[in-house]
Amino acid sequence: MTTDFSLEGVHFRREWHSPEVVGHRCLTRGLSDIAAMGGQPMACFLSLALPADLPQKWVDGFYRGLLRLAHHHGVSLAGGDTAQSPSGVLADIMVMGSVPRGKAVLRSGARVGDRIYVTGLVGSGGATVRRMYAGEKIRPESVPHYFAPQPRLKAGQRLRALASSMIDISDGLSTDLSHLCEESGVGAVLQSSTIPIADNATLDDALYGGDDYELLFTSSKRIPKELAGVAVTEIGEIVKRSGMWLSDEKGNRKTLSARGWEHFGRQ
Amino acid sequence: MTTDFSLEGVHFRREWHSPEVVGHRCLTRGLSDIAAMGGQPMACFLSLALPADLPQKWVDGFYRGLLRLAHHHGVSLAGGDTAQSPSGVLADIMVMGSVPRGKAVLRSGARVGDRIYVTGLVGSGGATVRRMYAGEKIRPESVPHYFAPQPRLKAGQRLRALASSMIDISDGLSTDLSHLCEESGVGAVLQSSTIPIADNATLDDALYGGDDYELLFTSSKRIPKELAGVAVTEIGEIVKRSGMWLSDEKGNRKTLSARGWEHFGRQ
Repeated sequence: MTTDFSLEGVHFRREWHSPEVVGHRCLTRGLSDIAAMGGQPMACFLSLALPADLPQKWVDGFYRGLLRLAHHHGVSLAGGDTAQSPSGVLADIMVMGSVPRGKAVLRSGARVGDRIYVTGLVGSGGATVRRMYAGEKIRPESVPHYFAPQPRLKAGQRLRALASSMIDISDGLSTDLSHLCEESGVGAVLQSSTIPIADNATLDDALYGGDDYELLFTSSKRIPKELAGVAVTEIGEIVKRSGMWLSDEKGNRKTLSARGWEHFGRQ
Repeated sequence: MTTDFSLEGVHFRREWHSPEVVGHRCLTRGLSDIAAMGGQPMACFLSLALPADLPQKWVDGFYRGLLRLAHHHGVSLAGGDTAQSPSGVLADIMVMGSVPRGKAVLRSGARVGDRIYVTGLVGSGGATVRRMYAGEKIRPESVPHYFAPQPRLKAGQRLRALASSMIDISDGLSTDLSHLCEESGVGAVLQSSTIPIADNATLDDALYGGDDYELLFTSSKRIPKELAGVAVTEIGEIVKRSGMWLSDEKGNRKTLSARGWEHFGRQ
């Protein structure tokens, strides 16, 4: 079971995100958590509180975006709650997933010497939010990775047999890596030059931006360069000493801080 | 699976409800829905968004109230999400329950001729809210039925073998009876003189007030006067013609409207 809020003014803004995008991303948040355990999603439940003056058209678009993604992954919307919101659109999505007994991939399994991997490209979330804050109008079609992220369910399921630990990087690569290290009682060194950075994004976007729905995992096994159609890149190694470091091509290390996803403040 | 919002300014007010009461009532909302299907609660999940300036003491009190009730019913808090709230305390509780296959009591099983029953006393929710709106200070200990409602789980489980349909009356007796009638494709006649009205409450509080966590059910079987320590009262009959009526002792009928629970508006 996963639960994830999508709150207006915190996780999205109506002036930046269409209702379809908000609905799609709302469910992606839950599905990505299921993917990060190697799970198969079964059903979802939505609690939705709406301001009294919200146009019905907005609500229809939200459900359209959410249900299209649900249908794509064979997940049924099996229930939920509705209420009037005192302020803004408030959504809470629960996803129920299943995994063969004992096969769920946890955050706590990383071992010293394991290599660290990430799926897809990183940083489009951070870069896109940065551009929107700067006042840029962005066509959603130009950044599908951000506006219509695809939860890595098939890759996650393939990784049941391969990964020693796994997490998604929706809170930012540095923050989610720190969660994984803490729960495993280990440290990590990332090779900055190997991080697969998305178009228009910077290394900082990739490390600190957040809102990317890719999988970060560790393994001692041989990992294919592609899993279920998604590129997989080795980006570092698990070490004994607790902490996180970023290493450049010359081998110079600096400390990597867990700076995460900064929610959209109300302006 | 049940999901229920508890939103500040909609379902509670911090000036009227202590954090312990908000936490207790938050979980009661979910447990009562499980009770109304004859289910056994297994685990709960809490999504909680908090304003940045909320005192930690409030949060501690909320969890204390919620966890005390969870412990009492053997339910574990198994996960959830936290976020910063743009406005007020926002809680969403999910409860997972189980019931033997095929034994869940649904809203759709009421049949013509079934008698209508309610557990406990009705109207304390409506009466208490009315008194708080009028500016009265109420000691929570004086109305435990409202401030610390007990979900009717044991009674609900006993009713698996007895009830043809069931619902809780958290949205108000008239509103929830209308849901039951609609889903069963039937109508209902209530005997106004038989409705077990709580102390200090009026018939209107009982019919339209809401926020009572009692069970409303139908049956063609003999029903004991008490189930699992809770009084059970026959209050009417299911009829073929769709609609709802209120009958007085002389047999005069008037139409009963589904007027429900009016959420706390922000003043």
